[in-house]
Amino acid sequence: MTPPTNRWVLYTAPNTCALATHIALREAGADVDIVVLDFKAQQQQSAEYLAVNPKGRVPALKTPQGVITETPALLAFVAQSFPQAGLAPLDDPYAFAQLQAFNGYLASTVHVAHAHRFRGARWADDPAALESMRAKVPQTMTACAQLLEEGLSGPWALGERYSVADAYLYTVASWLEGDGVDTGRFPRLMAHQERMSQRPAVQRALAEAAPR
Amino acid sequence: MTPPTNRWVLYTAPNTCALATHIALREAGADVDIVVLDFKAQQQQSAEYLAVNPKGRVPALKTPQGVITETPALLAFVAQSFPQAGLAPLDDPYAFAQLQAFNGYLASTVHVAHAHRFRGARWADDPAALESMRAKVPQTMTACAQLLEEGLSGPWALGERYSVADAYLYTVASWLEGDGVDTGRFPRLMAHQERMSQRPAVQRALAEAAPR
Ligand SMILES: N[C@@H](CCC(=O)N[C@@H](CS)C(=O)NCC(=O)O)C(=O)O
Ligand SMILES: N[C@@H](CCC(=O)N[C@@H](CS)C(=O)NCC(=O)O)C(=O)O
Repeated sequence: MTPPTNRWVLYTAPNTCALATHIALREAGADVDIVVLDFKAQQQQSAEYLAVNPKGRVPALKTPQGVITETPALLAFVAQSFPQAGLAPLDDPYAFAQLQAFNGYLASTVHVAHAHRFRGARWADDPAALESMRAKVPQTMTACAQLLEEGLSGPWALGERYSVADAYLYTVASWLEGDGVDTGRFPRLMAHQERMSQRPAVQRALAEAAPR
Repeated sequence: MTPPTNRWVLYTAPNTCALATHIALREAGADVDIVVLDFKAQQQQSAEYLAVNPKGRVPALKTPQGVITETPALLAFVAQSFPQAGLAPLDDPYAFAQLQAFNGYLASTVHVAHAHRFRGARWADDPAALESMRAKVPQTMTACAQLLEEGLSGPWALGERYSVADAYLYTVASWLEGDGVDTGRFPRLMAHQERMSQRPAVQRALAEAAPR
């Protein structure tokens, strides 16, 4: 599973939040190998992968120094590691905090709301409870989409400047339709999806993470 | 509710994750006013507070530039705003990423697992589902505590150096007992709690955020 190399290795799986880090790495021009796990075969729970990331989740980025997990941490790391790519306002703590708050909301609220659709077993055992969680996903994800839509004031997540937050917004907003959200109500989010889908880094990441 | 001032204002509530940011601000020596919301009176949903933070949650930090939310974003912001306090490895992207990954795990996994005890209504409507979520909290929080315990290799969350991650770990680990976790199984986490409780910044934050 792990190519023997000193280069960075990103562990991802199709249609997961790992796409955000993948896009950011391609925007940055990073020299990174991509390993696509097969969730249907439960590869994220294999002994080999748990040795990389004991949490059994993607994304995980292997570097010569060690393994980094958690999407917001990875996005900031990519931006800081490739400052010339201009993927974050690195010299302005307030602007950087707004980027991080945006990513933090996606990670701890929006992604979590979405996960109640297929991963409810993380938080309850009763099948009826899982069904009840699934039933509420359209509502919670609509509320999240509303807040995101209202916050979009320019072409990009943070306004005029493209950043790693766009890779994350693109990834999470791509789940809305499957989550039962009426996306027609969110024209700015949909325009953002369209804008993103034209970027070569996005197209490359999608192709590289496609199911095998 | 909001003191008319140009100083920073932290909005918090007793026994919430906002304690982490509060401790960090006191460790940094920040000049900040503290506003304690009354959740029993639903003050977090008042029009006045929603104008500060439309998410209706704490923490929120009002600065002359604008309002910052999301604990991991705030912790990094405090560390970057007071570099002389040495609350984060600011000059080493890899070490900073590990700090952020630690905080990101607390925010998106541990805090979320805990929230299924009293805030299940965020994710399901059926009372039986809420009960089923509540029933699993001891198990999920024990698994989180196990992962945190195994990661603790020194006196502090990141090893030898104290950081904002300690304020966050202290806050979240203080919920374990109430969440039905057998804390006796986690001696390192409990020693960390004890170590933290002796710091003046922690004692001050606890006193300032006590219920009115
Ligand atoms: N807080 C983590 C969440 C990572 C996560 O939950 N990843 C999902 C895919 S979107 C996963 O690996 N799930 C596999 C599983 O639950 O077995 C982050 O933001 O990176
Ligand atoms: N992702 C946010 C979560 C904030 C949050 O959920 N805060 C809770 C207290 S721990 C809250 O304000 N709850 C009030 C409510 O749900 O009405 C963060 O990490 O700061």
